[in-house]
Amino acid sequence: MIKILAVNAGSSTLKWKLFQMPGAEVIAKGQIERIGFQNAQLSVVTKENEFCEELTIENHQQAVDKLLVILTEYQVVDRLDEIKGIGHRFVNGAGHFSSSVVIDEAVLDEMEKLIEFAPLHNPANIMAIKAFKAELPNALSVAVFDTGFHQTIPEENTVYAIPYEYYQKFHVQKFGAHGISYRYVLQRFLKVAGRERAKTNAIILHLGSGASVCAIRNGRSFDTSMGFSPVSGIAMQTRSGDVDPSMLIYLENKLGVDSQAVLQMLNNKSGILGISGVSSDMREIMEIHKENARADLALKIFVNRIVKYIGAYAAELGRVDALIFTGGIGENIPYVRKLICDKLTIFGIKIDNNLNEVKSKEARVSMPDSKSEIWTIPTNEELMIAEDVEKLYGKVKAN
Amino acid sequence: MIKILAVNAGSSTLKWKLFQMPGAEVIAKGQIERIGFQNAQLSVVTKENEFCEELTIENHQQAVDKLLVILTEYQVVDRLDEIKGIGHRFVNGAGHFSSSVVIDEAVLDEMEKLIEFAPLHNPANIMAIKAFKAELPNALSVAVFDTGFHQTIPEENTVYAIPYEYYQKFHVQKFGAHGISYRYVLQRFLKVAGRERAKTNAIILHLGSGASVCAIRNGRSFDTSMGFSPVSGIAMQTRSGDVDPSMLIYLENKLGVDSQAVLQMLNNKSGILGISGVSSDMREIMEIHKENARADLALKIFVNRIVKYIGAYAAELGRVDALIFTGGIGENIPYVRKLICDKLTIFGIKIDNNLNEVKSKEARVSMPDSKSEIWTIPTNEELMIAEDVEKLYGKVKAN
Repeated sequence: MIKILAVNAGSSTLKWKLFQMPGAEVIAKGQIERIGFQNAQLSVVTKENEFCEELTIENHQQAVDKLLVILTEYQVVDRLDEIKGIGHRFVNGAGHFSSSVVIDEAVLDEMEKLIEFAPLHNPANIMAIKAFKAELPNALSVAVFDTGFHQTIPEENTVYAIPYEYYQKFHVQKFGAHGISYRYVLQRFLKVAGRERAKTNAIILHLGSGASVCAIRNGRSFDTSMGFSPVSGIAMQTRSGDVDPSMLIYLENKLGVDSQAVLQMLNNKSGILGISGVSSDMREIMEIHKENARADLALKIFVNRIVKYIGAYAAELGRVDALIFTGGIGENIPYVRKLICDKLTIFGIKIDNNLNEVKSKEARVSMPDSKSEIWTIPTNEELMIAEDVEKLYGKVKAN
Repeated sequence: MIKILAVNAGSSTLKWKLFQMPGAEVIAKGQIERIGFQNAQLSVVTKENEFCEELTIENHQQAVDKLLVILTEYQVVDRLDEIKGIGHRFVNGAGHFSSSVVIDEAVLDEMEKLIEFAPLHNPANIMAIKAFKAELPNALSVAVFDTGFHQTIPEENTVYAIPYEYYQKFHVQKFGAHGISYRYVLQRFLKVAGRERAKTNAIILHLGSGASVCAIRNGRSFDTSMGFSPVSGIAMQTRSGDVDPSMLIYLENKLGVDSQAVLQMLNNKSGILGISGVSSDMREIMEIHKENARADLALKIFVNRIVKYIGAYAAELGRVDALIFTGGIGENIPYVRKLICDKLTIFGIKIDNNLNEVKSKEARVSMPDSKSEIWTIPTNEELMIAEDVEKLYGKVKAN
């Protein structure tokens, strides 16, 4: 039995889960939010306790230091060297990493070259990796890539219709994201539905604060709605999804700002928040949409973009065995699942309104005569990360 | 019987067709290309003659002057005042014009305010309008908008998932394009297929040098692939279609250029030309794609993006009575129609390979048991423009 820490560092967050492996028992989990602010929020849940703290955390180095202090202080572990492996979610491995790797100096160098592909996320990831390496030099350090799962997408879907040299020289292409989640959800689906990977076509909807759609053909990623960056695709909590590129320059001129500012607006002030003007939270939108026209429009647009991606991917796949919902919204808001599925009549897709009441559970929610099965499968990216670390730890030990 | 001139001014072109109405007899047609260059190309086709000339044409004013000289010099008309109406294609009428209008001073003022929505096309349009007004002050001057047909698209499809105030204040929204073509093609389809407009759902593919897809619901435009500008949507001859907005800033940095230069690249060096590196012309791509991997990729991507838009719109529409091909590629390249339709098996769409050999004709090309009919309907934007002018001329005369 070994303890493995799964770490997910965002631009201003550090989320973690400590597993006992094998068996995937969660010993403790927690997060630090608002890193870089004076009122950073720390929360930890152990088997016995739950607590929160407000404090100043300047950067991810300090966040890691604080986390390690807590793990011993609150006796989550007796000694830090009980943690044998640390898995880091790395948002964009560009075209370089198709599967999880042990992070040695060469890998770290390579990862530092990829900062430009995810300028918000990758630097935070790298700082966290270095901090853990310094404090826990004997723990196996592993990178798990959100883009790795999408390396099977064929060129006709990864290449943009721009000068081909930019793809060759600068890696301008579709990378996608949420790959760790898709990998986990697909693996669980195959198991619970009793299906063979190589014969399975599916469309998975990861609907969380970030949200995307993935077309699975013969068990592999064949297309996905996020592209060169996670801002494109469907409308999200605060991200725009697909927009017209001319709009960017038009808004630069209208607002008197540079392109960087417009891109920030597309990332942080758009999506559900931008349309509704009141909330980025789908649960809040659900509560008010019947009385609030703009909240209702935000909900309609959220559903509309998803329906269109499902239609596009169904056409590409030719046959869809299952439609699978995951992520905060996908797992927990039956009404959104219903709104989406009710628009898929042309595909003979029929949701069962009773079965669909389920939340946070692995379940089939389609009618028996639905042409594609509909499932909800809660995601667990941290477990997927921990499993990858466990496998690589086994290999390293064996050598 | 009156003579009506239909004018289509692009950023560096002036195309025209002179009709005898009613009856739509084409008296003469022609174009001036490379306006602004020393080697501008002028070509004219009359009932008796056909001729070309290379000359210097500095701007659209000079192009109009030259055209009017030619019309009398080559005895296309005896006197210019035989031309009773001039219809101008205006690319982007933004949210202001839903149908064709007589261009008086107030309308011209309004049109000048719309330059920012189509900075390449609208100034050329306006210069041509003014030149004709100066030379033929008694002819009725009419604007026909490429965006007008799309004013029926509901908010859930026109509003982008960005802060709503930019839609309200700055008209950042989907405008679409090719509306004159869609209006003509739909009108022809309803006639030749004997269908009732209000009960007809269709997907029209305008595949020319610019290319877009339009979802028709109950006889009206419900969605279209071009957006705030004609650069978005499917891959075109030299335009990129949909891209990830983050890519723009990444390329600004990589290439050391500003956002305007990146947008120009997306408009003029992308699409089929950008991917293949050899040609923007689909006929040339067809000839070489079996031996040339990048030409083949360009063809695959062209088809792939169209198939995805069809899938998306089929989902939105719920029922598709007909898939209609138009535009240079859509009318004249059966193999492209076949490649697209062969990927639509999930919708029960079946093309008839023999019927599909047809070019430049109105014809049904689907199998009898195809779930949606497949048609090819040659477009005629100039005739649509002339018909609008004829109607408005009749109204003005009656008052």
